[in-house]
Amino acid sequence: MDIHYLDNSATTQVSESAAHAALTLMRENYGNPSSLHKLGIRAEKVIEAARETIAEKLSVNSKNIYFTSGGTEANNTVLFGAAEALKRRGNRILVSAVEHSSVYESAKRLGETGYDVRYIPVDSSGIVDIDAFKALLTDKTILVSVMAVNNETGAIQPVERIAKLTHKLSPEALYHCDAVQAFCKMPLKPKKWGVDLMSISAHKIHGVKGSGALYIRDGARIKPLLYGGEQQHKIRPGTESAPLIAAFGEAAAQADIFANAEHIKPLNAYATEKLKAVEGVSFNSPADALPYIINISVKGIRSETMLHHLEESGVYVSSSSACAKGKRSYVLEAMGLPDDRIDSSLRISFSKYNTKNDIDALLQGLQSGIATLQKK
Amino acid sequence: MDIHYLDNSATTQVSESAAHAALTLMRENYGNPSSLHKLGIRAEKVIEAARETIAEKLSVNSKNIYFTSGGTEANNTVLFGAAEALKRRGNRILVSAVEHSSVYESAKRLGETGYDVRYIPVDSSGIVDIDAFKALLTDKTILVSVMAVNNETGAIQPVERIAKLTHKLSPEALYHCDAVQAFCKMPLKPKKWGVDLMSISAHKIHGVKGSGALYIRDGARIKPLLYGGEQQHKIRPGTESAPLIAAFGEAAAQADIFANAEHIKPLNAYATEKLKAVEGVSFNSPADALPYIINISVKGIRSETMLHHLEESGVYVSSSSACAKGKRSYVLEAMGLPDDRIDSSLRISFSKYNTKNDIDALLQGLQSGIATLQKK
Repeated sequence: MDIHYLDNSATTQVSESAAHAALTLMRENYGNPSSLHKLGIRAEKVIEAARETIAEKLSVNSKNIYFTSGGTEANNTVLFGAAEALKRRGNRILVSAVEHSSVYESAKRLGETGYDVRYIPVDSSGIVDIDAFKALLTDKTILVSVMAVNNETGAIQPVERIAKLTHKLSPEALYHCDAVQAFCKMPLKPKKWGVDLMSISAHKIHGVKGSGALYIRDGARIKPLLYGGEQQHKIRPGTESAPLIAAFGEAAAQADIFANAEHIKPLNAYATEKLKAVEGVSFNSPADALPYIINISVKGIRSETMLHHLEESGVYVSSSSACAKGKRSYVLEAMGLPDDRIDSSLRISFSKYNTKNDIDALLQGLQSGIATLQKK
Repeated sequence: MDIHYLDNSATTQVSESAAHAALTLMRENYGNPSSLHKLGIRAEKVIEAARETIAEKLSVNSKNIYFTSGGTEANNTVLFGAAEALKRRGNRILVSAVEHSSVYESAKRLGETGYDVRYIPVDSSGIVDIDAFKALLTDKTILVSVMAVNNETGAIQPVERIAKLTHKLSPEALYHCDAVQAFCKMPLKPKKWGVDLMSISAHKIHGVKGSGALYIRDGARIKPLLYGGEQQHKIRPGTESAPLIAAFGEAAAQADIFANAEHIKPLNAYATEKLKAVEGVSFNSPADALPYIINISVKGIRSETMLHHLEESGVYVSSSSACAKGKRSYVLEAMGLPDDRIDSSLRISFSKYNTKNDIDALLQGLQSGIATLQKK
């Protein structure tokens, strides 16, 4: 059976060349990047090249890029590291109500330990309510965390505006942007925009799970999450996963933002048009969302029921985010959607490997599902 | 030029079958292990199989194994997680003076935040001084961390005895054992021995850098280091690196502790005999160390000088630990060695891939180094 993989926001297939890069570092240049001999230095050079490539994609200096074990670690490093570093200047932390769980749950934990954590509300499109945000920014605010692209809906936040408002109204605060779903899918200019910290991940762009990075602006000081060896200026100790970093660099190098957008936009338009014609389908993604993600609800059919129906014809999609594993989406809840819409939501997410053929298979599956499942 | 890789305690070459396991999860079973569809479930099954294999090697139940991004994260999770979970019961933390930097520096950090951190002294073999240890165990002690095998010398700590003393004299305390250098190289029975927490790593046993695990005994409760998704019972959230976990499982499955020991012991004996005959070489590893590591000093030649001389003939060794990158070894210092011995120390470390041929190349390199470098 053909595979129609439309769950690329959960994770992507590792590209052939990224897998090859990892393999080379596993079998040939297998030295420890901290070793002083040639085998170590060779691995270290590969890591530095990957750092350069990734930095270029963000238009920043490579020395500001720190490798982590993924988006979750990058986000946790920021939340706990900034809170600790800035606790003498204030204790208010603002995160949007639609952040990924690795920001959301970290903020919740900080709230339990005495920080004044506030959740910035969003409108029905899932975009932060700017007036409410402004009202929450005080001179005791030390950290603001608002993502670039929502992982469930593709909604794009006004990152540059949020950065500027943060620095204007809360001069002590650092602004962190979780850009895991945005990296290599839209231009990101953290330095130009005034973003102090930005998290990215490899496995959403055809790199390997277990690999991510954090951009830290010059002068933005946070405490490390991990303590140990001398690696990465002690901001992130531990033997670097040279194979995964090599693959991350290769995946980033391969990712042509504009060429990929030229491929994804018509796919999205095609899918949107077809989906609009299906009775019972409503759209949860805003019209101006990142084209890589379409979130819909199918009237009267629970997400999981439809998901399993679709996989019978080789079509793979997601119910809300993979990390939540079947729990009700707090993202769609924050957007004010009624329970039945939330419980019947599906996330369709694209990669450059998808074709119209995948969308046709999806549509066929949805239609047969609607015909048979609603009756049950 | 032939490679004589004798730096296996820094890191190992990924085995062919472990690399293949990783590759399969990158290119074929690339689903997110949290995804509810078949591609996700298939990745999840591979992870569970690896968990079983690793648990078996430790004679524990697989539900007690949590995957991490490596030894550093596992050690940090324990140090910070146990300190936080048990802070109401006491504030004393004991770590040996020869722990890996990821334990040592974490303990130091806890000391800065108000914990009463004490360093257990070691004797001239690098083994913890049991009388001094007993005197440090109080009813306010909440955590003891003593490694199984020292990463610089191979010295084997009396883990079972330390576990029993901890529980007898400090009933509130958890005992953690960093077994990164011991895993699959000697039998480890954390459950039987009374070890509450044990850290292990993949890349020391021909798995991939960026992958480790933590054993947590039933009922031993620690706070997580990372917050986020529902993965691994929220003890360690974040998308699991299914490729690296698959490779870790395969590397562990391949590791035949006894067969490997039968290979390493005669190699060690051969090297020891040859090294003893070289004038100016003294031994820093105790005679009963794990045979995988031999730490020596070469009179009058700085570690780095000899290391670079050796690599000219394809022989790769280490000056102290790779993580310290050229800093003076606090492990050898704690053993009471004089500065000149420390500054001329070399770590030779074996894997199952080494042969006598590698040792002959090492000896030849050492002898030519002694002949030419001492004069400079």
